Amino acid sequence: MGDIGERIRHRVSLGKIMTAEEAALLFRDGMLVATSGNPLMGYPKATFLALSERIKKQGGIRIDLLCAGPLGSEVEDLLADAGGIRTRIGAIGGERLRAAINRGEVKFIEGKGAQLPLQVKRGWYGPVDMAVIEAIGLTREGHIIPSTAVYDSPEWIDAASQVIVEINLNRPMALEGLHDVYQKGGDPIPIVGNPLKRIGVPYFQVNPEKIKGVVLSDRGDKPSGEPKPDRMGVLLGQHLLDFFKKEIAAGRLSEPLPPIELGVGDLAGHVMRKIGASDFTHFRFHLPAITDPVLELVEAGKVDWVSGMALRLSPEAWGRFQANLDRYKQCMVLRPVTICNSPEIIQRLGVIGINGCLEMDLQGQVNSSHVLGAKILTGIAGSYDFSRNGLYSIFIGPSTAKGGKISAIVPMVSHVDHTEHDVDILVTEQGLADLRGLDPRERAREIIRQCAHPDYREMLSDYLARAEKEPGHIPVLPKESGSFHLRLTRSGSMKKSE
Amino acid sequence: MGDIGERIRHRVSLGKIMTAEEAALLFRDGMLVATSGNPLMGYPKATFLALSERIKKQGGIRIDLLCAGPLGSEVEDLLADAGGIRTRIGAIGGERLRAAINRGEVKFIEGKGAQLPLQVKRGWYGPVDMAVIEAIGLTREGHIIPSTAVYDSPEWIDAASQVIVEINLNRPMALEGLHDVYQKGGDPIPIVGNPLKRIGVPYFQVNPEKIKGVVLSDRGDKPSGEPKPDRMGVLLGQHLLDFFKKEIAAGRLSEPLPPIELGVGDLAGHVMRKIGASDFTHFRFHLPAITDPVLELVEAGKVDWVSGMALRLSPEAWGRFQANLDRYKQCMVLRPVTICNSPEIIQRLGVIGINGCLEMDLQGQVNSSHVLGAKILTGIAGSYDFSRNGLYSIFIGPSTAKGGKISAIVPMVSHVDHTEHDVDILVTEQGLADLRGLDPRERAREIIRQCAHPDYREMLSDYLARAEKEPGHIPVLPKESGSFHLRLTRSGSMKKSE
Repeated sequence: MGDIGERIRHRVSLGKIMTAEEAALLFRDGMLVATSGNPLMGYPKATFLALSERIKKQGGIRIDLLCAGPLGSEVEDLLADAGGIRTRIGAIGGERLRAAINRGEVKFIEGKGAQLPLQVKRGWYGPVDMAVIEAIGLTREGHIIPSTAVYDSPEWIDAASQVIVEINLNRPMALEGLHDVYQKGGDPIPIVGNPLKRIGVPYFQVNPEKIKGVVLSDRGDKPSGEPKPDRMGVLLGQHLLDFFKKEIAAGRLSEPLPPIELGVGDLAGHVMRKIGASDFTHFRFHLPAITDPVLELVEAGKVDWVSGMALRLSPEAWGRFQANLDRYKQCMVLRPVTICNSPEIIQRLGVIGINGCLEMDLQGQVNSSHVLGAKILTGIAGSYDFSRNGLYSIFIGPSTAKGGKISAIVPMVSHVDHTEHDVDILVTEQGLADLRGLDPRERAREIIRQCAHPDYREMLSDYLARAEKEPGHIPVLPKESGSFHLRLTRSGSMKKSE
Repeated sequence: MGDIGERIRHRVSLGKIMTAEEAALLFRDGMLVATSGNPLMGYPKATFLALSERIKKQGGIRIDLLCAGPLGSEVEDLLADAGGIRTRIGAIGGERLRAAINRGEVKFIEGKGAQLPLQVKRGWYGPVDMAVIEAIGLTREGHIIPSTAVYDSPEWIDAASQVIVEINLNRPMALEGLHDVYQKGGDPIPIVGNPLKRIGVPYFQVNPEKIKGVVLSDRGDKPSGEPKPDRMGVLLGQHLLDFFKKEIAAGRLSEPLPPIELGVGDLAGHVMRKIGASDFTHFRFHLPAITDPVLELVEAGKVDWVSGMALRLSPEAWGRFQANLDRYKQCMVLRPVTICNSPEIIQRLGVIGINGCLEMDLQGQVNSSHVLGAKILTGIAGSYDFSRNGLYSIFIGPSTAKGGKISAIVPMVSHVDHTEHDVDILVTEQGLADLRGLDPRERAREIIRQCAHPDYREMLSDYLARAEKEPGHIPVLPKESGSFHLRLTRSGSMKKSE
């Protein structure tokens, strides 16, 4: 237990070490359970696995599961399969949980970006019964030293009446100090200039009496396959690079580029690699999660700083990260979502927000979350904060899906996550539509011209031409604005001929 | 000119005094012209009147008119009638300008709340050729002392290459000091605790060489008829009071109430009077414009502080305000829109945002701007900032319009200004729907139960019951979601029988 003594420096908490199975017995039916993590790393594995097993055997327990971001399939899907989730609050990571939600068997309440943890603390979701937090250890005073994720854990720990700490023995104590935990209150957030300067403490403050169990786990995180290079990412990245250069030439941007936010996912990774391979350097990244391409750019000496909420690395990248931890700690910081994604900080740093989406429409509205306006994918999450407060709000995505049968550019999106007010720039592999300073008619024409796939341009132009003949500020044909979606539902394609 | 010497303390600028007709000659075709003001007070009258006359006689001039808020009919409608506006950027106050925009004759670009002035400064709308600013005088150094509005003037003056100052001789110099001009930059906005504490200067900074003309005007502002007490406002106000009391009982709010934002307009005024007449006291108001009911509550000794961007008073109220200016200056401050409406300040003060709207839908989405998704009314303006960042985001409005032929609650709004993520509470005269912590199905039921007019409840419930049978997270029938609007267009009523 020598190693354990180094990790758990708080003597009383040493006495609370228990098995995951014992920890699973602390859960009751109807509890509101908050947890740390993201889909790849930093979520408590052993405890939820044991809980799933317990529910599968005994039944009778359904929890409300709270985490602003999506979680790993290990948590979400296993619990969902066991029938253990009554409500998911935040975002969805697991495929089977998603299916259960879309079948109406599990309730889902989308989190409102960085505001969800603050609303939970205000009591909007009722009392939080349990927080389950992955950690690397406990301080001498009993505070919790985070593992690879900070996110919303500080608020969960504050709000919860009981806490289970799951120590991930695979994560080295050397991570300590990567984190900067500051809780938003009534004062200005003191981040000015260089965000690497710490403003908080390197641990989650907790009243140690709240800790009901300490679970030791050596379970690995879910490995993430490294995505192959992809033409789509290269094209989108090139359009963005051209745009940045145009803005610099016009005197609206200067080098180095402002801090960049890029949503997670394979496409975002490809785009980041393309941007990173350009002549631009001294990158500053303000990200939801620190991913493989970020690490590569740091290794290439092209990065000034990285501010994120969590690590989200492939096993290969994690190996390199761990081997050079001291170097990375010098240019990286992990902070809570309430700080990273606060409008105050996004606006003050002047972050360029780049996020993926499902559909874009001729008004410049964006659907990030619901297929055909009904079926949820992941949830809006952080794009909520960056689209509204970014220096530029940019949405990217392929112009078609399902082998061309679906056009991502439609007359009107089937669900609005980002209104026309929140969208400055739309980018597909076809081109980049700069919507700034355009009125609704000009905007619609620009989107068709720049972003629509050639297969759909004529259909969209035909719709627009007829809509422009109607009176009104926004060109719209209410009877036809959903016609693309209806055709898809009926015939399996948005194309007219098929 | 003794009085003028006191108002215009900057000697060089005294030499720039000219008639409004002379100032009108400074405008050229295609200019981007920014102006101070709101629909009732603080907008430059003489200069734009003279410009309208010039254009009416000579033609050949069309300007792009920039002001984040709506302006008085005197500016907007006269210029529009003369064919002098090519593009309006911001919001719409004038009925005839609105009609010209909806006929497609004038372009309109909605302002993105408090971000518009910052985007203009970044060059997104091209160079600003002229700023026309109503003032009460000039400081010894040549800086501009605001009249009754601060709003976006600081950014306009900064961005413009030329400035016309219109001195409103009807406004006393004693207004000086009511204003607190601070420009948002890379530092935290230093408002903490009591917002009456000044953080800036009491004037608009300007390089006096930019001032191309000083126009003296004794034209009165447009008088505002005092609205009659109204049952709708009383009912909405009562629902809000009941809600506040419920939140206090649940421990989620405490007295005194958090600062309140209430949009402008007659209905908002009635609601404020109803709330003000309750047992609550020590009100703090953080408002776009300071209106008659605010003054009445100050006079009743029920107000701790009022933070706004402009005055918007009836002639009667203005008389009382002017007679007791010293008293009002002690509890009031006027600031720029970039400060008042900044997410940073709205979140830090914890403001309850209450705004009117046109339609609400079963998802909790709100339409504030476009009738039948096409015809613009005013524009989204400040509700953009408060719905997203308020401690509570509340939308209020009557459940029906046009004598019951229109239901404000529809299956899906015809235009989304505020997504479901930005709406916590919906209130009609029927009741209050508290959407917090509800999933989409529960939300739809709550809205029908609490907010819909009895005449439409069955139709809405029938729609929802069938939508709930479809798979998906959000209950929606894509083919039918616009049926209420189509029926209205066809038959003049959303009711089925008619």
